[in-house]
Amino acid sequence: MSEETENIQFQLTKELIEQVELLIAEKNDKELKVLLDEFHHADIAEILDEIDLEEAMYVIKLLDSETTSDILMELDEDNREKVLRNLSAKEIAEEIEELDTDDAADIIAELPESRQQEVISQIVDEEHKAEINELLAYDEDTAGGLMAKELVKVYDTWTVAGCLRRIRGQAEEVTRVHSVYVVNKQGKLVGRLSLKDLIVAKNEQKIADIYISSVDSVNVHDDVEVVAQVMAKYDLEAIPVVDGKQILLGRITIDDIVDVIKEEAEKDYQLAAGISQDVEADDSVWELTKARLPWLLIGMFGGLGAASIISGFTGAMLKYTELLLFIPLIQATAGNVGVQSSAIVVQGLANNTIKGKLLKRLLKEFSLGLVNGVAIALIVLLISHFGFKTSYLVSMTIGIALITVIIMAALIGTFVPIILDKRGVDPAIATGPFITTSNDIFGILIYFLIAKAILGF
Amino acid sequence: MSEETENIQFQLTKELIEQVELLIAEKNDKELKVLLDEFHHADIAEILDEIDLEEAMYVIKLLDSETTSDILMELDEDNREKVLRNLSAKEIAEEIEELDTDDAADIIAELPESRQQEVISQIVDEEHKAEINELLAYDEDTAGGLMAKELVKVYDTWTVAGCLRRIRGQAEEVTRVHSVYVVNKQGKLVGRLSLKDLIVAKNEQKIADIYISSVDSVNVHDDVEVVAQVMAKYDLEAIPVVDGKQILLGRITIDDIVDVIKEEAEKDYQLAAGISQDVEADDSVWELTKARLPWLLIGMFGGLGAASIISGFTGAMLKYTELLLFIPLIQATAGNVGVQSSAIVVQGLANNTIKGKLLKRLLKEFSLGLVNGVAIALIVLLISHFGFKTSYLVSMTIGIALITVIIMAALIGTFVPIILDKRGVDPAIATGPFITTSNDIFGILIYFLIAKAILGF
Repeated sequence: MSEETENIQFQLTKELIEQVELLIAEKNDKELKVLLDEFHHADIAEILDEIDLEEAMYVIKLLDSETTSDILMELDEDNREKVLRNLSAKEIAEEIEELDTDDAADIIAELPESRQQEVISQIVDEEHKAEINELLAYDEDTAGGLMAKELVKVYDTWTVAGCLRRIRGQAEEVTRVHSVYVVNKQGKLVGRLSLKDLIVAKNEQKIADIYISSVDSVNVHDDVEVVAQVMAKYDLEAIPVVDGKQILLGRITIDDIVDVIKEEAEKDYQLAAGISQDVEADDSVWELTKARLPWLLIGMFGGLGAASIISGFTGAMLKYTELLLFIPLIQATAGNVGVQSSAIVVQGLANNTIKGKLLKRLLKEFSLGLVNGVAIALIVLLISHFGFKTSYLVSMTIGIALITVIIMAALIGTFVPIILDKRGVDPAIATGPFITTSNDIFGILIYFLIAKAILGF
Repeated sequence: MSEETENIQFQLTKELIEQVELLIAEKNDKELKVLLDEFHHADIAEILDEIDLEEAMYVIKLLDSETTSDILMELDEDNREKVLRNLSAKEIAEEIEELDTDDAADIIAELPESRQQEVISQIVDEEHKAEINELLAYDEDTAGGLMAKELVKVYDTWTVAGCLRRIRGQAEEVTRVHSVYVVNKQGKLVGRLSLKDLIVAKNEQKIADIYISSVDSVNVHDDVEVVAQVMAKYDLEAIPVVDGKQILLGRITIDDIVDVIKEEAEKDYQLAAGISQDVEADDSVWELTKARLPWLLIGMFGGLGAASIISGFTGAMLKYTELLLFIPLIQATAGNVGVQSSAIVVQGLANNTIKGKLLKRLLKEFSLGLVNGVAIALIVLLISHFGFKTSYLVSMTIGIALITVIIMAALIGTFVPIILDKRGVDPAIATGPFITTSNDIFGILIYFLIAKAILGF
């Protein structure tokens, strides 16, 4: 019955975890191996993330380093750190021999500095060692920090037949061959070929005659976000990395870029939600507090600022107590509008769709604020006057304050991220609690100033 | 000097746009073609997005349909709609003949229903037409809605040599060959081969002897988010799509998944920021208002709710006016904590890292709220007592209220998205203004209730 390939997805069940734990407890190595052999290394990593460190170490010592090196890469970062701490420098070096240079360099970079040299010195393969050392020199947020040295490279002087022969050799080392890169005598990237092109070409043709000379590449010092943008825009699965002299240094594959895109999106999302460090739901209370308390403190000082503004108007307040009822409304509206505006700008900046002059954009936000403001002010005016029985003057105060606050919040929400971006600061930092807090304070200040002007206290 | 391949990125400059506009005005077709031929179709699309519709139509009629079909796919959705409206059914059909089936089906799905059949009937290639019709039947959020029919398929009974011969034929139609899919006589997917495997294999070997039988696949009705998760987890560049009987129907490539991941991230980000529809900074004021006003109205009703709560305590308020100063602080803190908690849960749900019991998670949020709450309450207590000279009882009221409000906001922020997710509702909807607004109201209510209990008004 079951000759069929299955497309049922891996399910991390309680039963499975218990089964693994039982086999470990029984030291039943044979069955444990048979069981785990069925799974993809990413699935085994998910199992290890769920069991105790000692049990995970048992599994890692049991399986061969070809599998465990891949598992290591897929473990949750915190768990990987713990596992690495429990392995000797020699054992880590053995894992690293199995990894592609980019993954190998990432693992080493995660080690405490004191261990890094110790591990590197234990790597037997001298070429692998040299390449890893080269990669470690690049900033992790650049193309150099993301690229792997493994690639298939041919010289433009070769023939198709010679090329295929040599590729057979090179390709064994390279997990996935996306493109064959064509270089000239000096090692400069001059073009590319797909395997398909090679298969379709005739054996005696010269590479120089068939290669495609238009090849996208990125500089080794380009920011990873730029690399992600280029690869997404041009639908690339791999991109060669060159230095300033166009010498081919490595290549970046799309799976790494998918991770970059996901991480950037998560970071922006967390910043917008007022979380200052990369945390997960499963992190400790202490780590979560470190990530969350800073923004709460900013909000707290904002709230205290609002308190001192209100205290400056206490006398008037007691004359017009109705005004007080609408403080939360003014504050919430200012916060919501600000977050909306800044989110749209931050996303536009990330996607490169924010073009044109700042003034034009502010004018647009102004008209947008006016439309939204008038709509909301009219509703509130009616409800406050007939529902809360506020006087004409107080109702008017609330309405005019709402319109003003909405316009102001929209302008601040637009202006701040654009200015930050122009100054080279990540505009995402301007979203969330930062915008909300400043708008809270300005909103309340404007509310009381307008009240003062209209009601004359 | 410039034999070198350039890795300077395309820059959409004002000068370039003016140059294109001038050549169009002069009807200088020859130079316009020479100029645009230099650029990637994604870059030409960026230029067309910036110029007037009439000018864009001029360029589209000028270039051959092989290029324009690719340009069409890269245009901003609003602009694509306008361009398609200006093309006849026959012209659209010509563009579609050039596109892969997945892109072709996407374009047709974007047309008004009345035009869809008209365009399809004009497609000359009967096989292409049938495949597009098949794809149109699938929901756009499923694997079937994302897959293309173009793929390289071989039978397990073939030899390597025969396989290579046939692949040469099939591969011409398929832009990029990731994997060669192996099927049996019934068309069931049984395995895969990489081109590398084929190149490395000997000509006389049977496919049945060399193919890799472990091949990930997704069902044609799987949700695109599931497909994205599987491809990202297993670092796949393409995945075959099968039906319930394991018959190979199509394949999905990573470039489409990159778009899905980006769109999902943007959608979640916008929901968290209180934007209810997919909008861009460049959309019209009207479209932006439609996306932004709904959440502002929710916030408005929240503010009015808070107003009626406060009005219920007016008598007490006038006795303890100091209490009023801290309404914004209570409200802002409740909102910030709620957004933080819900963002972490929403992200955890998206990444499948929310495991274990709901109760355990709520307990964790409780202790987290307690830690943050006590920290903030202590600072505020000191500042309110010594800075704002509030009485002991009022200071205590504020402190206890803050702790309670923070814990409550953390619990609501955690509970609501988890419950929504369990009921099959997108939990991202629970972030942003929704959580903020409900926490605003609860926060103020709790504040006054605690004040009443302590101060006894």
